[in-house]
Amino acid sequence: MDICWNMLSEEQHWKNMAPPTPRLVVPIDVSKKPWEQKVPLHNRWHPDIPPVADVIEGELFRVEMVDWTGGRVSDDNSADDIKFLDLTITHYLSGPLRIVDAEGVPASPGDLLAVEICNLGPLPGEEWGYTAIFERENGGGFLTDHFPSARKAIWYFEGIYAYSPQIPGVRFPGLTHPGIVGTAPSAELLNIWNKREKILAETNHESLKLCEVLHQRPLANLPTPENCLLGKIQEGTAEWHKIANEAARTIPGRENGGNCDIKNLSRGSKVYLPVFVDGANLSTGDMHFSQGDGEVSFCGAIEMSGFLELKCEIIRGGMQEYLTPIGPTPLHVNPIFDIGPVEPRFSDWLVFEGISVDESGKQHFLDASVAYKRAVLNAIEYLSRFGYSKEQVYLLLSCCPCEGRISGIVDSPNAVATLAIPTAIFDQDVKPKRLSGKQGPKLRRLPDVLRCSSDGHLPVTEEDPSSTRAP
Amino acid sequence: MDICWNMLSEEQHWKNMAPPTPRLVVPIDVSKKPWEQKVPLHNRWHPDIPPVADVIEGELFRVEMVDWTGGRVSDDNSADDIKFLDLTITHYLSGPLRIVDAEGVPASPGDLLAVEICNLGPLPGEEWGYTAIFERENGGGFLTDHFPSARKAIWYFEGIYAYSPQIPGVRFPGLTHPGIVGTAPSAELLNIWNKREKILAETNHESLKLCEVLHQRPLANLPTPENCLLGKIQEGTAEWHKIANEAARTIPGRENGGNCDIKNLSRGSKVYLPVFVDGANLSTGDMHFSQGDGEVSFCGAIEMSGFLELKCEIIRGGMQEYLTPIGPTPLHVNPIFDIGPVEPRFSDWLVFEGISVDESGKQHFLDASVAYKRAVLNAIEYLSRFGYSKEQVYLLLSCCPCEGRISGIVDSPNAVATLAIPTAIFDQDVKPKRLSGKQGPKLRRLPDVLRCSSDGHLPVTEEDPSSTRAP
Amino acid sequence: MDICWNMLSEEQHWKNMAPPTPRLVVPIDVSKKPWEQKVPLHNRWHPDIPPVADVIEGELFRVEMVDWTGGRVSDDNSADDIKFLDLTITHYLSGPLRIVDAEGVPASPGDLLAVEICNLGPLPGEEWGYTAIFERENGGGFLTDHFPSARKAIWYFEGIYAYSPQIPGVRFPGLTHPGIVGTAPSAELLNIWNKREKILAETNHESLKLCEVLHQRPLANLPTPENCLLGKIQEGTAEWHKIANEAARTIPGRENGGNCDIKNLSRGSKVYLPVFVDGANLSTGDMHFSQGDGEVSFCGAIEMSGFLELKCEIIRGGMQEYLTPIGPTPLHVNPIFDIGPVEPRFSDWLVFEGISVDESGKQHFLDASVAYKRAVLNAIEYLSRFGYSKEQVYLLLSCCPCEGRISGIVDSPNAVATLAIPTAIFDQDVKPKRLSGKQGPKLRRLPDVLRCSSDGHLPVTEEDPSSTRAP
Amino acid sequence: MDICWNMLSEEQHWKNMAPPTPRLVVPIDVSKKPWEQKVPLHNRWHPDIPPVADVIEGELFRVEMVDWTGGRVSDDNSADDIKFLDLTITHYLSGPLRIVDAEGVPASPGDLLAVEICNLGPLPGEEWGYTAIFERENGGGFLTDHFPSARKAIWYFEGIYAYSPQIPGVRFPGLTHPGIVGTAPSAELLNIWNKREKILAETNHESLKLCEVLHQRPLANLPTPENCLLGKIQEGTAEWHKIANEAARTIPGRENGGNCDIKNLSRGSKVYLPVFVDGANLSTGDMHFSQGDGEVSFCGAIEMSGFLELKCEIIRGGMQEYLTPIGPTPLHVNPIFDIGPVEPRFSDWLVFEGISVDESGKQHFLDASVAYKRAVLNAIEYLSRFGYSKEQVYLLLSCCPCEGRISGIVDSPNAVATLAIPTAIFDQDVKPKRLSGKQGPKLRRLPDVLRCSSDGHLPVTEEDPSSTRAP
Repeated sequence: MDICWNMLSEEQHWKNMAPPTPRLVVPIDVSKKPWEQKVPLHNRWHPDIPPVADVIEGELFRVEMVDWTGGRVSDDNSADDIKFLDLTITHYLSGPLRIVDAEGVPASPGDLLAVEICNLGPLPGEEWGYTAIFERENGGGFLTDHFPSARKAIWYFEGIYAYSPQIPGVRFPGLTHPGIVGTAPSAELLNIWNKREKILAETNHESLKLCEVLHQRPLANLPTPENCLLGKIQEGTAEWHKIANEAARTIPGRENGGNCDIKNLSRGSKVYLPVFVDGANLSTGDMHFSQGDGEVSFCGAIEMSGFLELKCEIIRGGMQEYLTPIGPTPLHVNPIFDIGPVEPRFSDWLVFEGISVDESGKQHFLDASVAYKRAVLNAIEYLSRFGYSKEQVYLLLSCCPCEGRISGIVDSPNAVATLAIPTAIFDQDVKPKRLSGKQGPKLRRLPDVLRCSSDGHLPVTEEDPSSTRAP
Repeated sequence: MDICWNMLSEEQHWKNMAPPTPRLVVPIDVSKKPWEQKVPLHNRWHPDIPPVADVIEGELFRVEMVDWTGGRVSDDNSADDIKFLDLTITHYLSGPLRIVDAEGVPASPGDLLAVEICNLGPLPGEEWGYTAIFERENGGGFLTDHFPSARKAIWYFEGIYAYSPQIPGVRFPGLTHPGIVGTAPSAELLNIWNKREKILAETNHESLKLCEVLHQRPLANLPTPENCLLGKIQEGTAEWHKIANEAARTIPGRENGGNCDIKNLSRGSKVYLPVFVDGANLSTGDMHFSQGDGEVSFCGAIEMSGFLELKCEIIRGGMQEYLTPIGPTPLHVNPIFDIGPVEPRFSDWLVFEGISVDESGKQHFLDASVAYKRAVLNAIEYLSRFGYSKEQVYLLLSCCPCEGRISGIVDSPNAVATLAIPTAIFDQDVKPKRLSGKQGPKLRRLPDVLRCSSDGHLPVTEEDPSSTRAP
Repeated sequence: MDICWNMLSEEQHWKNMAPPTPRLVVPIDVSKKPWEQKVPLHNRWHPDIPPVADVIEGELFRVEMVDWTGGRVSDDNSADDIKFLDLTITHYLSGPLRIVDAEGVPASPGDLLAVEICNLGPLPGEEWGYTAIFERENGGGFLTDHFPSARKAIWYFEGIYAYSPQIPGVRFPGLTHPGIVGTAPSAELLNIWNKREKILAETNHESLKLCEVLHQRPLANLPTPENCLLGKIQEGTAEWHKIANEAARTIPGRENGGNCDIKNLSRGSKVYLPVFVDGANLSTGDMHFSQGDGEVSFCGAIEMSGFLELKCEIIRGGMQEYLTPIGPTPLHVNPIFDIGPVEPRFSDWLVFEGISVDESGKQHFLDASVAYKRAVLNAIEYLSRFGYSKEQVYLLLSCCPCEGRISGIVDSPNAVATLAIPTAIFDQDVKPKRLSGKQGPKLRRLPDVLRCSSDGHLPVTEEDPSSTRAP
Repeated sequence: MDICWNMLSEEQHWKNMAPPTPRLVVPIDVSKKPWEQKVPLHNRWHPDIPPVADVIEGELFRVEMVDWTGGRVSDDNSADDIKFLDLTITHYLSGPLRIVDAEGVPASPGDLLAVEICNLGPLPGEEWGYTAIFERENGGGFLTDHFPSARKAIWYFEGIYAYSPQIPGVRFPGLTHPGIVGTAPSAELLNIWNKREKILAETNHESLKLCEVLHQRPLANLPTPENCLLGKIQEGTAEWHKIANEAARTIPGRENGGNCDIKNLSRGSKVYLPVFVDGANLSTGDMHFSQGDGEVSFCGAIEMSGFLELKCEIIRGGMQEYLTPIGPTPLHVNPIFDIGPVEPRFSDWLVFEGISVDESGKQHFLDASVAYKRAVLNAIEYLSRFGYSKEQVYLLLSCCPCEGRISGIVDSPNAVATLAIPTAIFDQDVKPKRLSGKQGPKLRRLPDVLRCSSDGHLPVTEEDPSSTRAP
């Protein structure tokens, strides 16, 4: 266990005798809209979004966060809110926080910012979350060609456990984590992002041969002022317009961390983030009560509001010492993570395999995405034999603590990907077994996941690729 | 724990009072060539390769296996054997075994064959293995564009531990497993394989946009009589010629299991294999003392000869009951695996992330292969800061018990893949930490991995794609 | 995972759409004294202490608790509060809670009450605790003959981690649990307790041959009205006097559970408690942020105030079905516990052994207490070689997640007990290793644990054994 | 992971290129008697038993061992061999081995000998073992007052798994370990042992108040020439007579390690043994395929013949540096153990509790032995509700990987001990659950454990305590 508790000198502790209740730097009132919060939120990455607070390294502090949509998804019995969700709003983040050392010197470009997750969880009184399938025409998901319609499941938390009335027979402890933790990009890095994603967005789908099975989704989500929220920057000002037109969307994980969706980034973990701007400008959000590797349904974790209790350490010069760029500039780096011993452990796993042959029987070349798609499809089909609807399983595999592995990536032409599911989350034995003669109909697991009031799909608008809007 | 010990009735045990020493059904003499073994081996998949032995379900039996090359790689101080290895020889498998029930009725197409791995390990007296990088012009590997030259490291086993004189400072317990376990394909399935892989092999690389970073490798390895070994079928006979010309190569994992390279398939695991031919015709081979997820250097596991102690159970009608085809025919299925509680557990992991942006800075679309490549590159660069050569780390990540995960596969345009490395395998602390002023040069880890006597690359022969030969 | 989420019918969830925020049934205000709390507390076991609230099975509810002393130990820099602590006050418990089923029928004698711990932790704003050595003359501890003076260490919590300014160089995640969870005894069971403990208290020490090494501690703590707190029963009333004179003290674990101090009884665990009175009358208290097996220094866990989030299930007739009395009456039973997958896991342990030979060299006969004492002494001596004072280690082993095992209990005359310590809690390598020539003085770990303002021991009062007062 | 693979210089490996097949230093032929083995065995501890071989530190070597009785217990259908077993024969050990460093200098008194267990297992062809209850009059066990008659169960191994025809419905992976690993005592230490055990043996039982519940067993097993086997020392010689009359019996664990029965001492573990004589004189034996904490039935593990693959390291001066005597002489020390990450992990445990109140209802004072006895009795009674006989459960808890913990040792007057059983070893759900109305008779688990041909007890001979003979 890497330890930084001695950031505050022992003398300090001695004098104060004050317990280290974490200082609340970003409070959230879930009855208010994202733009009405006392400490303003933001939903874009940009170097010029000003910090909302300073944090001293070694200090234990608390950040509260709205759910990624800022409260637009309700604990009700319809998936309509999912179907019509405007994805330009996402993700509402808390921060940026300016990290300084004990002498007040901020973290500087080239440093590494070590962020330890000391604790996290849902907000008291808000012990619920949701998992959803986006409509094919509005965001989609990994299996959007198989599951084109919006669906939703509500999860309730009983302490560390989650269960869903819409997916009966399943209950599991959450490996709770923030979907998003990142530092602000520099102007140069932001420019790199915008350029490379624009090129992709302008590509036509036909040229993307290998991932054609994923072809019905937006290629990239480029900057747009629509629904842009920029913290302390007043909407409508010149500054706002400038930033809003160039700030990066928050959907993909990038060099600054961001939406990395690493499901094991829970209590006791540490993130080593590269610092690109003075003060690091740390932001967090998109709390997940639990998520499966891949987060396959896209709105796939158990999404919730929540809190983080964090400690930071600045490793001066750490980027140069520890990170080597893979790419044309010194900014082409990625964060490092340290996953600790404090997570639910399962001792029995059922594993589904996929190879890079798609549903039409076509052979792809070492394509791990195709292989993983097939593994997930195999798991859905298998578990649906035990009384579940396929939508129930799709949502379950998005949010339960299942592991997605790249098992073989060299045995041409087949990549082999596997999906491992802990058997203990089910209230029945889901392993293959010798069939008795009197094998009867399987118990149907009812009720099912939530549908929309009307299930006709959204119209597909021919649009200018630069305005593509999606999660 | 799923249990099938009552296959033999208790009465039988009673009468016999005989300890269940596993019956040796395939013995290996490593001083002999693959084609000289007492029970003949094979290196292709075909329904007409005749079984070498019968096994009764419930019976504990032992299968011994040569290493995948049949002994062509030596415990010497050069990588020459790797550089010039003829990959049409691979993989030498033990079997096929015909599985029958207590009444002598063989497993039938449509059944599921549950194979429990009760024990495994190296052959006594052969406690060593190797990990290698193939030459770019002769097989290559996941990072062949970065590591185009043949290299080799020898590993010695001290009981459950492995260490390599060429990669000092590292030692770890093996999560030993068979790289290959599979049933024979039916003629129909074999035909499907040959057709789809031929189409791919005939594709020109330019059309494979997304995986262009992997472009320097053979696309597929089509049937070839060269070096074909077919068990009891006499070489040169008409039957041999027929089979040799259509039998599938063993490199990729496919519907029958085969080269799935699932690193956790160790003691106490169970494989549920679909049965395509009468008797199932089970074959095994390619023993790995240890492997990392992805087996990135291709000859990437700690390759060795070894033994398996197995028990089989036939689940009659299990394919229809438990497997749903994903594809145009009922044969488009995949095996299921059950991973048990008996493996080394590590409590601290260092995790490297990759996103689907390639080394040139180009943005790819949700490509998990590209993302994983970047994660592996990040890990190699990072660990090389601690005194290792990049070749040492590349080989290490191929064979140590590291985990490759698909963390996010939906956040367009970036797939996020992660590579988690257990920190306990190193004799030094490899985590990022605050730098002291006197940071000096890192200890160089010598000696390095084994090179070839001459490092000029092999000539690239323009060849007819149907004769492509590779691992 | 055993699951009882379907206690509330799915329909109910459906209608309410209310998140299952746990209902707060016992609130605590730590600025108030135990007897000033809004819902009254109690510190004795007796069937006639009336319930303070009803709880319906299946309902998620929250109980808050003062620390075991009700706030008499402070976050200050002296062990005086420990030295002079009046142990007749302990333990202040929250409850009793009357458990009823959905129809309002209370749990009945003969039922089994399953209590699931869904969550727990410190009270917000009270993220600190303490570990202490009691004075030999006022309670003592397992090693009171070695450590006769009162000492104290303060622990601060950083989320799931604890560290102590008085024991530098150590930090660990808490396996937080309630020291006490129990049901009320029936009058008959209470009578059994009082009788058997009185007999022991009246025994003179000389007759207790085998445990003479533990001889300086009170033999039992018999009922006394002193400092008695009885919930809703008004002090000074006739009823109060009757109950106070016969109510059992809370120090030992007994048939009703009580102070069982099982350190793994954390999130995701379940207790199956026998029911002796109508409604079960469940009480909880003595929250521990962390404890080592044995809790050797007596005030040995990291003691704190805290909360529990619980769910109950009534297993009608469960005592008869599942529990067999070991003893002269049907009441001589013990609870059962179900420990789940959600706890910190350590992969490397340093293990100290003790045999039943005492410090004088005397051979005892299969005495696990003596063997464990020796194992603990061995561990203290060993770790003190690494710069710690023995008092620091004694306190550390009382509260860190170390495991105390009975390894051999049959190899006459030596019982073998072991104490296993996870090495990851230290910031240095504490394993034996080959000594380099320049082995210098070990770094002294300062500051040390807290002492008293004056270290002269308390006077030993000759007392009537029936009034013995101790923890 | 502590690593000593670099004992042999890299250069050596380089030159040899020889795989490190362990050198066989003690071979065993199970068809021969213990005194007929090629390398002679011994069954006593004495400094003058001469080494049978030298071992160089860093060298990987293999020791084979007979089972503890040297083959007197058979794979047959009666417990007669157990009933009449002469316990003066035990335990047959392999060794002593003289450990020297690379320069040939032997380990010296005051050094610490680190012994790493690289591998272990049953002997090929001998994949079976047994667990037994000794007759009350001939050894007894922890619960000898409850189970006075000899019983036996045979276990068969399927790779890492064990099952018993006599205890159906249970199967588990073995945490295989040597029951005995120890160094030779010096003459001074031997004298200490003989003196203190003689005093105990001469004590009459009545004075042993606290452990009276264990009173029917021999107090100590003093030196006796009967059945004495002393390695290279010829029986009948003067030297033999001298040694045989003073050599310590092997039953208890002592300062030299010996019969410590630590069930986690499996693959990847390390023992740090004090060295008392030149060369250390390491002996091993009493292989256990699996054992529960406490080994409660005495012949309680799954006893077998087997092999160890070991590596030694000499820590010069390590006793003084790392071990502090607890007792009147510098020899009153105990070994240290390092338990690694390579063992079966279970995620769900059913835990039984015992308090120090005995079966008669009598209150004992902090007696962990009594508390553990009660915990074991509770577990036996509970599991017998699921169709097992109590003898089946008693044997099962002796040998399955259950954990015996000292949970509380300070809460006067009750020690709390717990016994945790992994639920995954059963083929049925053994947790308490809500009873359905139609609760019918439990399936009887047949057949039962093996009995004797006649079950009358052995005569109890009044004997001189100095000649007491027992396991």
